[in-house]
Amino acid sequence: MTVLEKKTTDRLQDSLVQVQRLIERHHLVEELVHRQDMPRHALVEDLVHKQNLVELKQKLEQLHPADIAYILEALPLNERLLVWELVKSESDGEILLEVSDAVRETLIESMDAHELVAAAETLDADELADLAPDLPRQVVYEVMGALDDEEREQLQSALSYEEGTVGALMDFELVNIRADVSCEVVLRYLRRFDELPHHTDKIFVIDDDEVLKGVLSIRKLLVSDPDAEVSEVMATDVVTFHPEDDAEKAALAFERYDLVTAPVIDDAGKLIGRLTVDEMVDVIREESDSEVLNLAGLKEEEDLFAPVIDSLKNRWAWLAINLCTAFLASRVIGVFEGAIQHLVALAALMPIVAGIGGNSGNQTITMIVRALAMGQLQVAQAWRLWRKELGVSVINGVVWGGVIGSVAWWLYGSFPLGLVMTAAMTLNLVLAATLGVLIPVLMQRAGRDPAVGSSVLITAFTDSGGFFIFLGLASLFLM
Amino acid sequence: MTVLEKKTTDRLQDSLVQVQRLIERHHLVEELVHRQDMPRHALVEDLVHKQNLVELKQKLEQLHPADIAYILEALPLNERLLVWELVKSESDGEILLEVSDAVRETLIESMDAHELVAAAETLDADELADLAPDLPRQVVYEVMGALDDEEREQLQSALSYEEGTVGALMDFELVNIRADVSCEVVLRYLRRFDELPHHTDKIFVIDDDEVLKGVLSIRKLLVSDPDAEVSEVMATDVVTFHPEDDAEKAALAFERYDLVTAPVIDDAGKLIGRLTVDEMVDVIREESDSEVLNLAGLKEEEDLFAPVIDSLKNRWAWLAINLCTAFLASRVIGVFEGAIQHLVALAALMPIVAGIGGNSGNQTITMIVRALAMGQLQVAQAWRLWRKELGVSVINGVVWGGVIGSVAWWLYGSFPLGLVMTAAMTLNLVLAATLGVLIPVLMQRAGRDPAVGSSVLITAFTDSGGFFIFLGLASLFLM
Repeated sequence: MTVLEKKTTDRLQDSLVQVQRLIERHHLVEELVHRQDMPRHALVEDLVHKQNLVELKQKLEQLHPADIAYILEALPLNERLLVWELVKSESDGEILLEVSDAVRETLIESMDAHELVAAAETLDADELADLAPDLPRQVVYEVMGALDDEEREQLQSALSYEEGTVGALMDFELVNIRADVSCEVVLRYLRRFDELPHHTDKIFVIDDDEVLKGVLSIRKLLVSDPDAEVSEVMATDVVTFHPEDDAEKAALAFERYDLVTAPVIDDAGKLIGRLTVDEMVDVIREESDSEVLNLAGLKEEEDLFAPVIDSLKNRWAWLAINLCTAFLASRVIGVFEGAIQHLVALAALMPIVAGIGGNSGNQTITMIVRALAMGQLQVAQAWRLWRKELGVSVINGVVWGGVIGSVAWWLYGSFPLGLVMTAAMTLNLVLAATLGVLIPVLMQRAGRDPAVGSSVLITAFTDSGGFFIFLGLASLFLM
Repeated sequence: MTVLEKKTTDRLQDSLVQVQRLIERHHLVEELVHRQDMPRHALVEDLVHKQNLVELKQKLEQLHPADIAYILEALPLNERLLVWELVKSESDGEILLEVSDAVRETLIESMDAHELVAAAETLDADELADLAPDLPRQVVYEVMGALDDEEREQLQSALSYEEGTVGALMDFELVNIRADVSCEVVLRYLRRFDELPHHTDKIFVIDDDEVLKGVLSIRKLLVSDPDAEVSEVMATDVVTFHPEDDAEKAALAFERYDLVTAPVIDDAGKLIGRLTVDEMVDVIREESDSEVLNLAGLKEEEDLFAPVIDSLKNRWAWLAINLCTAFLASRVIGVFEGAIQHLVALAALMPIVAGIGGNSGNQTITMIVRALAMGQLQVAQAWRLWRKELGVSVINGVVWGGVIGSVAWWLYGSFPLGLVMTAAMTLNLVLAATLGVLIPVLMQRAGRDPAVGSSVLITAFTDSGGFFIFLGLASLFLM
């Protein structure tokens, strides 16, 4: 009867530490058992051993499935499987949904078909659809066979939509009413439920053909006159989605209009499902995760304790691409080996020119990519932004190029070298600004996602371009 | 009475395009007026001119404040101010809350004190607290003077918490009840409200000292027996927050437990406010934005159409830091000028060694920073991860280093050069792996945010380190 006293933000980490401590104790006991094989001790240690596991199991049973998922992610593989073995229960399915793809794989691998079917059977059709791609095919078939017709239809419908669409994320737990009943009737109808669907903040008003006519928010229902008809109190300007809509755009709409749930309708206006804010929060989180991982050159979220081989797979693609671009830049330098031999200072100064171009280009491209993703930048406006970026790059070039040029002059005692340095930095910044606008705009035009790969591309250009401009200018004016 | 037919995801962009077209037409008419000063035309054009603005104003009036904010962000400064002038209304305050910091500045600059006071007065205490730092001080005082005692207290309390804490984000619109009343009474009590606070999905149960005793979810209330006492149906295991809690951690808890609202209590357990999921979604979005901007070397979100000088301010800090680290790397190369003069191939090959180190280091550091931010990685486990990263880096070094070493051997006809290249790449990758684990862990230990600056730091080390290792090995074995 008391409210939790502990702050939630710390509670979870405390649980993790407790679990880790119990596992450690468990390992210690195990080690003891192995070390001494005197039989008279065995019984006692076996007891201690078992008691330890019981304690761990009790601890785990107190936790929310999402918390267990968090703990599983934080544990190395063998300890993770020990905990997973203890936790197996009716919330297995939910936990599998919560963990990251990489960790889910390790958990599913440790389960036999029977356990997987049991876990999957506890899930709703839309949740099952999320899990299905990771399950062995015969498990999916077995679970499907156990569903009733309506659920099977829902599952098939959810599976038919591509990942990243509204259809793949919607759920089917709806409360529908007609427009011509009174609020009193609605309240009585709701009372007949054992439990309302999670996140229910509105009920959907449909006609005989299941076409959505409006929504009745629960907040409104609670303050309305019980005798009022639903049609009088319902809202008719509803934010609706179609199953083929992009999930990230739907998430932006949830964010913008502060929605908790929203109806999903088909082209005929028929209500077919709903979106809930918890799914949208996951979309936002995943989107931002993949953006950051992408920028860092990781293909996807990595299991922290993945075997080396899995980590290599996750990282090789980007390393290989980066090596190719670095090799290209190296060949550009190769062309000017004569100039470098003649004036070895060039070798020391050239990475500065390439580096500042890459940094500045990434600043520009990040801004443009974000504006394009939000739909706030039309391609027609690009030249206007380009002019501005050009202004920024020329000032940066003259100021920072001037500083570094002066330092080069002072270090190497050559005024022309300083001048070439300043000019090269300015030109490379202009190149960076131009490509920083051009690359994402062209990618968008070509129907590709400008966020993927544009950073690598611009760095490749500003590296090779920086070396070429600097060494080229030096060859022309200093040799 | 009809549901919106247009997909929401496209509707907003259509609105933007329509507004842009109306502005363009407006500019065209203005231009005509300027070009010909024949007085007989003036009247007609003035009419057309006005009609255009009326049409634009009508269009804007149909839009949600969040949509207007979106459009304002997408417009260049003078057009933005034209729209802002037309839109000024009772939703001004809301729009100011929705736009990004940079755009808000431009809007506030265009308003006089009187308009600002009018806009601010429409806001709740917690919203006012968000806006206050951007308002001129005398406007804040004036608005404060107009508040009643309770609101003023709430505003002061909201202002007293640091940005990024739960206290700065909580609102004060609460529905409280006592535990000893029946559900029927609660329903009657709710019906007396004109409107329930936004996002109300639960009511807070408190005792005579305002100490939180539990929460009654609306979903539960609706299906409960009207005669049941609140104490029987309320939930007592409640996720609660304290005002000084970190907002990002609170957002993680909302995500994990799929919350819509949650109570904020003080150390004595007294209910002082609540958090709502819409604020948490904004926290998640801002967090991910600042992560991406940070990685790209931008201080904050930039107004796409900011004057050049504002853009420079936003970008200079990172460029300056990067220039310093590039200069350092350049000095490392300077030390080995003799070696380069002797074997100019070194100049062409050295950026490859530095580059792969930077890429690989950023992959490692991104993973570690994310795990630390989630609290899933204890410093004690770091050595275990380091061993794994070491494995990854040695394999990467031998494989990719081997490839590039072979190419170098083939290109320059020197087997020892190829060998030095392979060795240098492997060693730089080992350095990258070590620092990729060490830097964030040490920053965390020192109480700093490992996400800020760690990418720059590791690139600095792998650049200078890469040049040093490669040129050093070459000096030792190839000279």
